[in-house]
Amino acid sequence: MLAWLDLFGVGVFAASGALAAIAARLDLLGIFVLASVTAIGGGTLRDVLLSRHPIFWIRDARPMAVIAVGTLATIAWVQWQPVPLHALLVADALGLALFAISGAEVADATGCSAPVVVLMGTLTGAGGGLVRDLLLARVPLILNQDIYASAAIAGIVVYLLLHRVQAPAPLAWGAGFATVAGTRLAAIAYGLHLPVVTP
Amino acid sequence: MLAWLDLFGVGVFAASGALAAIAARLDLLGIFVLASVTAIGGGTLRDVLLSRHPIFWIRDARPMAVIAVGTLATIAWVQWQPVPLHALLVADALGLALFAISGAEVADATGCSAPVVVLMGTLTGAGGGLVRDLLLARVPLILNQDIYASAAIAGIVVYLLLHRVQAPAPLAWGAGFATVAGTRLAAIAYGLHLPVVTP
Amino acid sequence: MLAWLDLFGVGVFAASGALAAIAARLDLLGIFVLASVTAIGGGTLRDVLLSRHPIFWIRDARPMAVIAVGTLATIAWVQWQPVPLHALLVADALGLALFAISGAEVADATGCSAPVVVLMGTLTGAGGGLVRDLLLARVPLILNQDIYASAAIAGIVVYLLLHRVQAPAPLAWGAGFATVAGTRLAAIAYGLHLPVVTP
Repeated sequence: MLAWLDLFGVGVFAASGALAAIAARLDLLGIFVLASVTAIGGGTLRDVLLSRHPIFWIRDARPMAVIAVGTLATIAWVQWQPVPLHALLVADALGLALFAISGAEVADATGCSAPVVVLMGTLTGAGGGLVRDLLLARVPLILNQDIYASAAIAGIVVYLLLHRVQAPAPLAWGAGFATVAGTRLAAIAYGLHLPVVTP
Repeated sequence: MLAWLDLFGVGVFAASGALAAIAARLDLLGIFVLASVTAIGGGTLRDVLLSRHPIFWIRDARPMAVIAVGTLATIAWVQWQPVPLHALLVADALGLALFAISGAEVADATGCSAPVVVLMGTLTGAGGGLVRDLLLARVPLILNQDIYASAAIAGIVVYLLLHRVQAPAPLAWGAGFATVAGTRLAAIAYGLHLPVVTP
Repeated sequence: MLAWLDLFGVGVFAASGALAAIAARLDLLGIFVLASVTAIGGGTLRDVLLSRHPIFWIRDARPMAVIAVGTLATIAWVQWQPVPLHALLVADALGLALFAISGAEVADATGCSAPVVVLMGTLTGAGGGLVRDLLLARVPLILNQDIYASAAIAGIVVYLLLHRVQAPAPLAWGAGFATVAGTRLAAIAYGLHLPVVTP
């Protein structure tokens, strides 16, 4: 079940990466590269840092297939229809929530300390977008805009707290997921930002 | 034999990285860093993602020696002569072809699925230039210009198909190599580009 | 003893990363990300390339705690006082020297060849700042300004030479450290630069 949800996250992030590439006027190859990097970059960083071998998309062929289909569908879509930006933002929030909590679960299962679990979950959720922005030679959006990675952090903390007090797994998962998605969607709806520090 | 060809690829890519650094007015250290990153960045990403240990240039001292010599020779050359841009482009195409096919061979030998073999070969061939451009804070050329990584993909597919139908190894290698180099040189000669997607 | 010195280096680099983030007007999350990346990026690259598992800040909780405290202290400081840039430059030079020599020691202990030891030590010392600049989408300062990574290289060579001629460990360590810190501080004091190559 969760594996299928993860594949949904891969597809959403691939679409978001492909749209960013199209907007930056990259060529066909660049579109596939950006879609892949956005979809699997975060999980790849997590697996490399945790020395999990083999990396998830080497072990399992489905993520790459989902990326191929999602990218082609995105390219086809933009030929016919205006981009459904609002639907994409909502789907991206769900993808962030899925990846953040499942990344935290993976790190927790390997026995990492709580701060490392939070970091790994956040990296799984927000790392793909960070690498995407690096490839576009711009300061990653998650570092100076919106509540994005912070939504992931909030939800992972909720998940981890419930997990540590022995709450049932579905409850911990659901509450964590809802916190990430809810915080992210609220941030979009109300234009919330983290404060900037001024000297 | 192949090992020596690989070292030729390292030298060519080191020269290309050094020239990019000189053009960007980096200092002496920056020239060596860019030469190294261009020459061994792709293979390093491949080895890290495939969890091959130790990484090829830690196991074998020759790549670093070739980078040192190639970089010094490039620095000396530009003091005396105009840069032989055409010769360098041809040498770079040969380096791309060598790295793409030998990277694919390495991934195939570790039992990766066909799409992962294509990705790893492409990363081995084009990954160094990608990291070089990241360090120069510009959108990697391979994402929006020329047929470069796509030439690698085409040749790796040829190599893999021949390999899967039990063609003799030298034939698969030679055909894959010729496809990469030929596609890349044709793209340079005729100014071929991949299409850009427009909404 | 050395472990505590390393933590001092982590704190100094965290402060330097946090200041860079504040200057670039990143939000609170961005400040923590840049502080972390600057403080542990170099050692993380070293551990990934050397396949050391688990990575040092996953094995040991103290680096992340030091980063949290160092970043909060930096944020508090800039509310009240002008940034003590000179003190920070001196502390950064000491951090560079600590990380360079301890990174070289780690690589040497795993049996790497001399050029790889120099590279790994330099990466440990200067890699964090390099990744920090990548995230800020600018050409890394160490590639075109100042004597920074080159100070690390000089000191590691001194350390390694003394180590190979069986000098006592504290002497090799001290001489290497003094060479890095001294070269770096002299470069700051006298505005020394590496030459730029002009065709």
